Amino acid sequence: MEKLRKIGFSRLTPLEDAMEKLFSKIYLNPIEEIEIKEALNRILAEDIISEMDIPPFNRSAMDGYAIKAEDSFGASPKNPKRIKLIGVIEIGEASNLEILRGQGIKISTGAPTPKGAEAVIKIEDTEIEDNTIILYTSLTPGKNISKKGEDIKKGTQVLNKGIEVKAEHIALLSSLGFKKINVRTRPKVSIFGSGDELIEPGNAIEPGKIYNSNTPMISNLVKLYGGTVVRGETVKDEKQSIKNKIVDATQDSQVIIFTGGTSVGTKDYLPEIIQESGIILTHGIAIRPGSPALIGFFNEVIIFCLPGTPVAAYICFLQIAGPAIRKMMDCIAIDPRIKLSAIIKKDVPVSSLGFLHHLRVKIEYIYNEFVAYPVKLKGSGVISSLTESNGIVEIPPHQEGLKKGDQVIVKLFPK
Amino acid sequence: MEKLRKIGFSRLTPLEDAMEKLFSKIYLNPIEEIEIKEALNRILAEDIISEMDIPPFNRSAMDGYAIKAEDSFGASPKNPKRIKLIGVIEIGEASNLEILRGQGIKISTGAPTPKGAEAVIKIEDTEIEDNTIILYTSLTPGKNISKKGEDIKKGTQVLNKGIEVKAEHIALLSSLGFKKINVRTRPKVSIFGSGDELIEPGNAIEPGKIYNSNTPMISNLVKLYGGTVVRGETVKDEKQSIKNKIVDATQDSQVIIFTGGTSVGTKDYLPEIIQESGIILTHGIAIRPGSPALIGFFNEVIIFCLPGTPVAAYICFLQIAGPAIRKMMDCIAIDPRIKLSAIIKKDVPVSSLGFLHHLRVKIEYIYNEFVAYPVKLKGSGVISSLTESNGIVEIPPHQEGLKKGDQVIVKLFPK
Repeated sequence: MEKLRKIGFSRLTPLEDAMEKLFSKIYLNPIEEIEIKEALNRILAEDIISEMDIPPFNRSAMDGYAIKAEDSFGASPKNPKRIKLIGVIEIGEASNLEILRGQGIKISTGAPTPKGAEAVIKIEDTEIEDNTIILYTSLTPGKNISKKGEDIKKGTQVLNKGIEVKAEHIALLSSLGFKKINVRTRPKVSIFGSGDELIEPGNAIEPGKIYNSNTPMISNLVKLYGGTVVRGETVKDEKQSIKNKIVDATQDSQVIIFTGGTSVGTKDYLPEIIQESGIILTHGIAIRPGSPALIGFFNEVIIFCLPGTPVAAYICFLQIAGPAIRKMMDCIAIDPRIKLSAIIKKDVPVSSLGFLHHLRVKIEYIYNEFVAYPVKLKGSGVISSLTESNGIVEIPPHQEGLKKGDQVIVKLFPK
Repeated sequence: MEKLRKIGFSRLTPLEDAMEKLFSKIYLNPIEEIEIKEALNRILAEDIISEMDIPPFNRSAMDGYAIKAEDSFGASPKNPKRIKLIGVIEIGEASNLEILRGQGIKISTGAPTPKGAEAVIKIEDTEIEDNTIILYTSLTPGKNISKKGEDIKKGTQVLNKGIEVKAEHIALLSSLGFKKINVRTRPKVSIFGSGDELIEPGNAIEPGKIYNSNTPMISNLVKLYGGTVVRGETVKDEKQSIKNKIVDATQDSQVIIFTGGTSVGTKDYLPEIIQESGIILTHGIAIRPGSPALIGFFNEVIIFCLPGTPVAAYICFLQIAGPAIRKMMDCIAIDPRIKLSAIIKKDVPVSSLGFLHHLRVKIEYIYNEFVAYPVKLKGSGVISSLTESNGIVEIPPHQEGLKKGDQVIVKLFPK
């Protein structure tokens, strides 16, 4: 505790508490109506109730002949039955034909079955001779007919609000005749990399400087999580210019994400600025890497100050900023990452209790099970520890590391 | 075999053989140079070799003081050591300062360590009194200094061509100073829904008709797989108009995907047209659902004719058209789906051997393991069997179904 005070945190807040506090202050984004075909990855803002039956009519599940089932009873290759062909129904055609005993109608897969039809005999179980259909098999009533409403009944809730729309949802909504749906607007996000050491990629490197990798990384994570990037810039460690950037961004953004400048170095102005002109909700979170993270508000705008080291910034985005963006859209899956279970292949000691540790692992599928290899555990600046791994294992604050052979949950990197 | 002939397929080709035949005829797409920040989900077309060391210089991993390690030897809270503060190095600053015995320099995390520095003592392990630094702990040489090149050495291959670029790759590339990279151009795809029964969503339904859901579904799958949609239209079952659409599409597309019209119904003109004016590579594939699928070429353009029933179209996209699109971009992961292993919770009988069966399953994580529940097995038109499930279990052609308790691989739906 004494140590923490020295680096400027009065205390470290557990991640869950920090997020609960933040979520209690988040308002949902407005709803907008968009074309369904443009809805990929958007967050549905309404429950969807089917306004029709699927199928919308009794339809043939096969290319064949609609018949009275009884006419086929006892039919076999050795004992074929014969009925009369009285017409054809093509797919997409509404027919007034009606079947009586001893009659059959040629019908395509998906075409509406005619009045009186009890079954459809597959074309390969028949032969045709002039106007006679020869039946080689016996059918039970209902065979090869998809009944109106058997897949989806009118009035059924088919999708829940808060889901992320995927290709299969687009298919379902289209098949129900919907052309537009209500989704949550995308949160508008401004992203700043703070630090005098930053040079933009493409320029020559200078002594003591490094290339800015956080702004492009966070911008793309924001896109993956459903937000819209309003701006991505680097700013110098200069108090007034940082403040001006924040004020500008509050005009057109709902979220501001800084990387760097959030600790307590001589040039870490962000906490000071937010303290003076906004509200600090949480500064210092009990996670590693990422403990200097700050969550605050500047007017109505959420401001996240994430550490400047890229791995810490990445992990803080996944755990803090990303879930907040999804919460604004009322997502069911606040955390979109896929989880799988694996066996850890090495002991992982934890140096300091009290932190939620984030272990980067590489997954392999060996002998029928997933195994997770810890990727080198050093500095949080090492981006290659991300590109060489597939996901993260979280080690809870009061667990003394992992033992080789432990079953763990791996949260795969978002894609 | 006799049966198959009747429905127009001389034989069904195993999926692997069909894909091998197709892949042998696929040319790689051209390469284009794009900005790295725009590279999310693009396919890298070159191996990336680092042109610099990371870190580019010896740097401090902590806020603290750069010292000679020896000056700290034996230091403890009860036996502090004292050295002289001779300067400050901020992050981003190239300093000419040099440390001698008995001296320390204040340094920020990420700042270059000065000449002569052997270790950095954390600020919380010190106190400052005027120009004297009081050291409360003993450090080994190298402590808290990240050595030039220790993460990535100049000349190291850091990324392989053929990967799909994610946020972490964007971070890595940016940190190495790259501004642009070479990626494969996106395959241009035209999508057609064929069938007189199709009505576009948003219009009133008519007797015997259904809404077109395949075109919007396939369009969004194409986007997910990295292609670009040139057009998405429905066409009537009319031979000349289908042919005209194909000819138009060959002018500006590399891939044409039809849904519907590929079987052997009276109005299934597609195989006929391709036979006459193009080349049929494969017609009839030993998968269920999806066996009527056709793969061909029309001039240099790949043409896929997928079944009209939405689930079959979806599965054929994942297994046939999608991998081809990724092959054109020279992807390492031809199939981008995430796989996990699960225990199947029900017996799944298979009615006909010889087909690669696709079972839709819903995954749950229960008692430390993933379990997979088969989602109703009926018609391939039932889109809700997709929206209610998370992935697909493939049952190989000569396996007689699954037994409750079997371990299976689930391929999650693409997202």
